[in-house]
Amino acid sequence: MYNKADEKITEKLREIAGRDSVFTDEENLKLYSKDYTENLSYNPEVIVKPVNTSQVSSILKLANEYRIPVIPRGGGTGLSGGALAVYGGICLSMEKFNRIIEIDRENFQAVAEPGVITQVLQEECEKQGLYYPPDPASRGSSFLGGNLAECSGGPRAVKYGVTKDYILGIEFVTPTGEIINSGARVLKNVTGYNLTQLLIGSEGTLGVITKIIFRLVPLPKFRKVLLAAYNNIEDCAKTVSKIFQAGITPSALELMENSAMQAAEKQLGKKFPNGEAAAQLLIEVDGNHEESLMNDIELIGGIVSENGAYDVLLAEDNQKMNEIWALRRCIGEAVKSISEYKEEDTVVPRTKIPDLIKGVKEISSKYGITTICYGHAGDGNVHVNILKDKLDEESWQKNIDTAIREIFTLTVSLGGTISGEHGIGYSQKSYLPIALGSSEIELMKKIKMTLDPYGIMNPGKIFSD
Amino acid sequence: MYNKADEKITEKLREIAGRDSVFTDEENLKLYSKDYTENLSYNPEVIVKPVNTSQVSSILKLANEYRIPVIPRGGGTGLSGGALAVYGGICLSMEKFNRIIEIDRENFQAVAEPGVITQVLQEECEKQGLYYPPDPASRGSSFLGGNLAECSGGPRAVKYGVTKDYILGIEFVTPTGEIINSGARVLKNVTGYNLTQLLIGSEGTLGVITKIIFRLVPLPKFRKVLLAAYNNIEDCAKTVSKIFQAGITPSALELMENSAMQAAEKQLGKKFPNGEAAAQLLIEVDGNHEESLMNDIELIGGIVSENGAYDVLLAEDNQKMNEIWALRRCIGEAVKSISEYKEEDTVVPRTKIPDLIKGVKEISSKYGITTICYGHAGDGNVHVNILKDKLDEESWQKNIDTAIREIFTLTVSLGGTISGEHGIGYSQKSYLPIALGSSEIELMKKIKMTLDPYGIMNPGKIFSD
Repeated sequence: MYNKADEKITEKLREIAGRDSVFTDEENLKLYSKDYTENLSYNPEVIVKPVNTSQVSSILKLANEYRIPVIPRGGGTGLSGGALAVYGGICLSMEKFNRIIEIDRENFQAVAEPGVITQVLQEECEKQGLYYPPDPASRGSSFLGGNLAECSGGPRAVKYGVTKDYILGIEFVTPTGEIINSGARVLKNVTGYNLTQLLIGSEGTLGVITKIIFRLVPLPKFRKVLLAAYNNIEDCAKTVSKIFQAGITPSALELMENSAMQAAEKQLGKKFPNGEAAAQLLIEVDGNHEESLMNDIELIGGIVSENGAYDVLLAEDNQKMNEIWALRRCIGEAVKSISEYKEEDTVVPRTKIPDLIKGVKEISSKYGITTICYGHAGDGNVHVNILKDKLDEESWQKNIDTAIREIFTLTVSLGGTISGEHGIGYSQKSYLPIALGSSEIELMKKIKMTLDPYGIMNPGKIFSD
Repeated sequence: MYNKADEKITEKLREIAGRDSVFTDEENLKLYSKDYTENLSYNPEVIVKPVNTSQVSSILKLANEYRIPVIPRGGGTGLSGGALAVYGGICLSMEKFNRIIEIDRENFQAVAEPGVITQVLQEECEKQGLYYPPDPASRGSSFLGGNLAECSGGPRAVKYGVTKDYILGIEFVTPTGEIINSGARVLKNVTGYNLTQLLIGSEGTLGVITKIIFRLVPLPKFRKVLLAAYNNIEDCAKTVSKIFQAGITPSALELMENSAMQAAEKQLGKKFPNGEAAAQLLIEVDGNHEESLMNDIELIGGIVSENGAYDVLLAEDNQKMNEIWALRRCIGEAVKSISEYKEEDTVVPRTKIPDLIKGVKEISSKYGITTICYGHAGDGNVHVNILKDKLDEESWQKNIDTAIREIFTLTVSLGGTISGEHGIGYSQKSYLPIALGSSEIELMKKIKMTLDPYGIMNPGKIFSD
């Protein structure tokens, strides 16, 4: 089906990108064989690190001609195996595309290359009173290009939206090597098809993003963080939609069950206030008027108490807020350090969170597996971590796939879908037909084939072969 | 190239949709030959008004088999000729798809058919404390399906975004008759390609939208409207970006030059406060805390005065706000009643508005044409109406195309593009290569051909043949 990136191809890659930018040594192949997805590992045959769009175009033309898989790679922090070289081939690492080209304070825009680390852009913006809200947990090492490819979200999505909502345009290279400029430096645009949004969330299967035009917003002047502790997760989950129904849109609304908090405490060696609670909500509001925020906080305090919270704590200062957020941020990593695991990225309408969590616990109990739920409850996005923990290997192997299928079938029956912000990639592709019908999948594959006639672009992702 | 919808086809349409839903009489053909675009008119050969998705699918399969153009039609309020039957064929009027299926107050969502009038959805939402912000000037008669097809905006886009930002999913029928469900009832979704966003803004050329899942937001409790009058349009245009730079995001920021206000006053027989100004800004802020809004208004008042406004007026009550908005809303129609015209939908980065307006006036003066500028300055979207007015027919014919080309070339050179919210459709398609290169246009055409192999779906739109 595909050809190997052999010595002849490697030599051609050196001609394109320079000898210093092409790697075939074992150490590097191993380093680029993984992302943050479970314990999966697939070696590419060669790694190339282009420095400009013209090199990317030449590499893709070469790969297209010789039918060699190309796996575009950002920071390697993906959670669905998008950067794994499952068919070998060329790992196209975008790490040298690391320039912020422009921050346009007057128009609230930025232009950057895809290899810039998310947090670097965030901080550069904040220095100028600007705000780039998308905020994946891996922001300290994830690349912006990968954020676009997976349409990353994070806790602020509930108020501010996800990555796709901040992209005005991109430059990308198609699998056949054409350089495409999509969008413009404008807030509204209906000038031909929205190729930008077709590429965002396409997980590296339709092209390689080489430049990004961002929309920014004014940095809010104030924020407040509140923790609401519950004796049971049902009441905690039920509270989520009540807050919105009062007309408040928090800038974050996170749910953490006890085992998630425990894992985080162990990881950082610090304590959550009320960390013994069965579940907690972390609620943040932000804005330019401190008094309005205090009104909101008071209103929220009333709602959570009426809905069963036994304690409500307002973080007294920035340091305390940052401590709480640091604990919340490390949950993903902490939970995974417990044992072998599978992570699912379920998303449902907000009011269905109690049904989702109840169902997940029933399925867990049926198969004797451990599940830990946490995540962005405000937008209905609950990360379900399934742990092997003390389960024997045979039961784990026998039941894990069935359990995941049942969780996803429940998610979809609640009006939800199987990935909110991690993507389908390699690890979830066998579950795609639970969320999408065959007509939808066929149409997507046809679009893929239009851009990528030989299927060289990140093969083995999203769709089952 | 295409076949006619002859008597045989018409009879088959009657079999699919019922005799009462198929029309071929002259009166109806004439009625459905136009939209709101200039004085353009093209008769379809037959009009069909399906009542469900299955009928739409059958009609498209028939048209695909017999190679007959299909022109999907919403409220017929489009401004780029998207609903014109330029190759004859079947006018597919979606007027019977007029049900709001559900308003889900708890999850801030709505499900509706594409033939619902925009304002009807807005008002039903507002009754329940929910807000659907996209607000095209034609909202009293435009259909939601058409709003999606053209990615409508309106004055609130500056704070709330455009139609695309409120769509969680759609059901649509491809040109070959497949029924596709894209998206889900969730706020975040990276489960396969974003077909929803591919269809939005595709101007009826990729399929027929048959159901829409909307995201809603809480209805803000308060709003304030302010008018700032200027002695010259340059100062007025320069003020726009200053307001955002102070960290304020108004819910509307409209610019109107004197001739636009005059036309509106004549149309409605009412007066603008300070209607004699060379130009005015209409600035609205909204939110849940009246005091915060008054702070913003005070801050804005300072900024406009520092930047040359000679008078600033706060609308004292709801009635006054509505009167001002009614005048603003009718400008589009009013300006066009003056004479034969061309309307352009330029959009640039906010700080480039002064350069755009200056350039437009220079081009006008060079060719002896009259231009009236107004629109959504807050998001950089300036509607440029070019009037024939007292110009002789020969000069008009000779220069109008060149003048438009020069205006669009300027727009693109400022980082902008040629349509912010009206679409390319029929009237702007010859200008598309000013905004997009041949690689971009070729890729779009390839995607079109993937969905629509015989090109039956709204032919003659977006792309030149």
